[in-house]
Amino acid sequence: MPSPKIQSLMMNSPLTITSILRHAESNNPGGRIVSVTADHPRHETTYAQAFSRARQLADALVRRGMQAGDRVGTLAWNDFRHFEAYYGVSCAGGVLHTVNPRLFPEQLAYIINHAADRWLLADPVFLPLLEKLAPELKTLEGIFLLTGAAVPESAIAGLQNYESLLAEGDADFEWPELDEHAPSSMCYTSGTTGNPKGVVYSHRSTVLHSMASCLPDMLNLSVRDTVLPVVPMFHVNAWGLPYSVPMVGGSLVFPGPKMADGETLQRLIVGENVTMTAGVPTVWLALLQYLEASGKDLGRLNRTVVGGAACPRAIMQAFRDRYGVDTLHAWGMTEMSPLGTVNQPLPHQQDLSGDAWLDLKAKQGRAVFGVEMKIVDDDDNELPRDGKAFGALKVRGPWVCSAYYERPESDAHDADGWFSTGDVATIDADGFMQITDRTKDVIKSGGEWISSIELENIAVGHPDVLEAAVIGVPHPKWDERPLLVVVRRAGAAVSPAELLGLYEGRVAKFCIPDAVEFVEAIPHTATGKIQKMELRSQFAGYRLADG
Amino acid sequence: MPSPKIQSLMMNSPLTITSILRHAESNNPGGRIVSVTADHPRHETTYAQAFSRARQLADALVRRGMQAGDRVGTLAWNDFRHFEAYYGVSCAGGVLHTVNPRLFPEQLAYIINHAADRWLLADPVFLPLLEKLAPELKTLEGIFLLTGAAVPESAIAGLQNYESLLAEGDADFEWPELDEHAPSSMCYTSGTTGNPKGVVYSHRSTVLHSMASCLPDMLNLSVRDTVLPVVPMFHVNAWGLPYSVPMVGGSLVFPGPKMADGETLQRLIVGENVTMTAGVPTVWLALLQYLEASGKDLGRLNRTVVGGAACPRAIMQAFRDRYGVDTLHAWGMTEMSPLGTVNQPLPHQQDLSGDAWLDLKAKQGRAVFGVEMKIVDDDDNELPRDGKAFGALKVRGPWVCSAYYERPESDAHDADGWFSTGDVATIDADGFMQITDRTKDVIKSGGEWISSIELENIAVGHPDVLEAAVIGVPHPKWDERPLLVVVRRAGAAVSPAELLGLYEGRVAKFCIPDAVEFVEAIPHTATGKIQKMELRSQFAGYRLADG
Repeated sequence: MPSPKIQSLMMNSPLTITSILRHAESNNPGGRIVSVTADHPRHETTYAQAFSRARQLADALVRRGMQAGDRVGTLAWNDFRHFEAYYGVSCAGGVLHTVNPRLFPEQLAYIINHAADRWLLADPVFLPLLEKLAPELKTLEGIFLLTGAAVPESAIAGLQNYESLLAEGDADFEWPELDEHAPSSMCYTSGTTGNPKGVVYSHRSTVLHSMASCLPDMLNLSVRDTVLPVVPMFHVNAWGLPYSVPMVGGSLVFPGPKMADGETLQRLIVGENVTMTAGVPTVWLALLQYLEASGKDLGRLNRTVVGGAACPRAIMQAFRDRYGVDTLHAWGMTEMSPLGTVNQPLPHQQDLSGDAWLDLKAKQGRAVFGVEMKIVDDDDNELPRDGKAFGALKVRGPWVCSAYYERPESDAHDADGWFSTGDVATIDADGFMQITDRTKDVIKSGGEWISSIELENIAVGHPDVLEAAVIGVPHPKWDERPLLVVVRRAGAAVSPAELLGLYEGRVAKFCIPDAVEFVEAIPHTATGKIQKMELRSQFAGYRLADG
Repeated sequence: MPSPKIQSLMMNSPLTITSILRHAESNNPGGRIVSVTADHPRHETTYAQAFSRARQLADALVRRGMQAGDRVGTLAWNDFRHFEAYYGVSCAGGVLHTVNPRLFPEQLAYIINHAADRWLLADPVFLPLLEKLAPELKTLEGIFLLTGAAVPESAIAGLQNYESLLAEGDADFEWPELDEHAPSSMCYTSGTTGNPKGVVYSHRSTVLHSMASCLPDMLNLSVRDTVLPVVPMFHVNAWGLPYSVPMVGGSLVFPGPKMADGETLQRLIVGENVTMTAGVPTVWLALLQYLEASGKDLGRLNRTVVGGAACPRAIMQAFRDRYGVDTLHAWGMTEMSPLGTVNQPLPHQQDLSGDAWLDLKAKQGRAVFGVEMKIVDDDDNELPRDGKAFGALKVRGPWVCSAYYERPESDAHDADGWFSTGDVATIDADGFMQITDRTKDVIKSGGEWISSIELENIAVGHPDVLEAAVIGVPHPKWDERPLLVVVRRAGAAVSPAELLGLYEGRVAKFCIPDAVEFVEAIPHTATGKIQKMELRSQFAGYRLADG
């Protein structure tokens, strides 16, 4: 006979960003936040002070009429005011919409209008840009410059600075009790085609992502860490660090507008006792170049998290050999909050060295609990985890997006709830995932997939090659075949035959490009990525010799 | 104007124990589980095999009619079969009810009947006990012995072994999709008065507790860990380790019935490359005694988590100085899943030594994200976090219980949702909590609280004192005053005046006991704790000299 009915009897405490704030306020009120800003060469505050100011911001916005779900945009660098807005807006029930100032002006206008932002908090440096855009920004009711300095004469009606907005609010504002599924923040992702698409995070997804990202096999964050997020706060919430670091009571160091300035980064790392940093490879290249030129070191820094693009091996090696810093490859995307994998070693890999070490380090890492991951072929059959088979990478989990904001035509998941990342990857027997291509760039030849990135990496290994791109061109028999497009270094005269010879014995025969074309330049996106679609249209009429 | 309505657009993936199982199966199928059992001196299996067998168990139980919410009891030591039941029962929608075999027979019968267990999985060693209890166990439909060995002749109808039950099920059983708030497991907590009370965990509370307990400032669990849970799986789910270790892909080593056997523990720690253990202080005392006698060491063990009672300083010092093992004080309770705090150092405490190090180590630790904690006075006013004020400790959070199963008269929380732990504690400015007493044992004298434990610790520091207890006795002016009750060592003749002299200058004047009484023995509970209630009733008519 079935047992009498039962229900679980645990507290139904919601997972909200407010619970992170409250935890930090109770347990680490003195936690340190150091910032470089336009109006402060070095500004230091504490969690207690920052969250008190976040209450003032919340109260000021609510007094101005902010209701649950209202969007507040930011166009800002990493600093303490942006951090205050992360909590002040979301914990009051608003939706923090971080806008990427590096986008084209028409994309900025589209995003701010599409999200229907009511207010915008902007770094003073973006004022000229905003003055141009202002007539197009139909939903904005006010723009506040993130500074304590006087606001200049401006065509923007009612322009104020952030400090005067804060003065409108009380620090004894009481946070509302929020549903954990309430929207907390949003971030648009700009693909290479069409308008940017908005991802809407929830309080729950943010809290779960933060807990997972602190785990020892992810970022390994503790109260003993001082973290310098060089990844921008407008880029997927700086990989969640403004939430995860307060969650464990660590310290935060914000570089403000000095994001890729090797000298500032080195000074902050050593001067503020930074133990961890996070950013894209180009930032670390700039830092390493500065270190080499200056002869300076990295103090107590023990790890650097690299994402956004594959990290060149030379960077990982230089960090380890010269500065004793471990490089951790991470992978994720805006649609994933963003973290999915981090490369942390298994027990038997802890003492690897040389090429075996670099081969492991080059992988994007293992999935954290909460992110299900699989690779599939064209018919959606799951492929083996053997480190060889590569297929479209799909993910699923509580901090993965299920749809885009007001874009009903863009399905973000399949019938079984899996999100297609757009990446092509392998997964090895130990669970390490490695990105080999983008699904739209992979070359499909006679039913086989050929990775364009693998072929490009081999080509750029030739000293005469400045840049290389591999694209698929139509082929009557094989559907597509790879074409290698190369920019040679000035004065170099390497031949097609010599370049194709590089592939002998290094890739399967059917993967070797059919031809080589030399060009003056390869087109790039605003963020520096190769525009393969543009390149494919340039070679749309291309006919291979045997085609 | 408010922005148009918005909702979060993240996947609504439920937090279930099944998601832990799936994560381990995908990412760590070869994860190792080593056990000592009655029928195997050393049994080794993998997560893939264990979860395949968990599917067989689930299918077998469903074929026998198990429905969502049905209770399945266990009366078992820590081993791979008990581990399989953790997943096989809960992930199939059942409620795993772990029963503590150390309780008195009448308590066992009460618990199994109160929970209305349909089936019971029991270690063969408990068969004689069960044969006696069987007539009283009204709801049980079957008892299965956790062994592959033949089942002896028994008065229990239909007695089978676990392996034959498994053979009734298929390994291709498909896990149902469960609501994260569904009940997953239950555990009764036995106070010193009244019947034991049942705490009912949910899938959600279990998953969140597991994620939190892996954090670097908690147990710091990673894929590189091999964990030996010496805390029993019938005692608050072995502090959650059977969930948290598979969550990160670590290895598990189960000691079976050899829980307090120093020789077995040392052999497992060294032979299986154990990196972390967890248990109560008496276990570590047994291990240290064995190490001292045998001259053996602890291999790769780097940390020991101690909870259940305050860990004697000598144990922490011996582990560190002689074996290079860090002792981590943890605190929690059945009602808290159980973890609330772990003692991990702040940045400025990492290099402490001597008494400063021991003073820090003696504290129960800092609250993890997810557990709100406060101390209050008799009027429920929050007390300062100054390391001096001590008050009743209250907690709140998603893995804290809100009520007891079918015990409507036992409120588990106050109007604001706080659970009263029954502990009296201080919290210092750094957030470190230290238990100073139980609320029912604290002595309330003229509006001030006096910690009985602090006074006892001082008394047992005298070489002539074998055991000491301090209780409150009625006093006409001060309500209560402390009385020191002492068992002297054989042949010792220490005087009351000498014992009271120990307190001069070490505690506030009003805390010094008013009198000393010598007794032959102090009463203890079944689990070895001093029965203060019994002691208070022995001294109910006691009159102090000036009373």
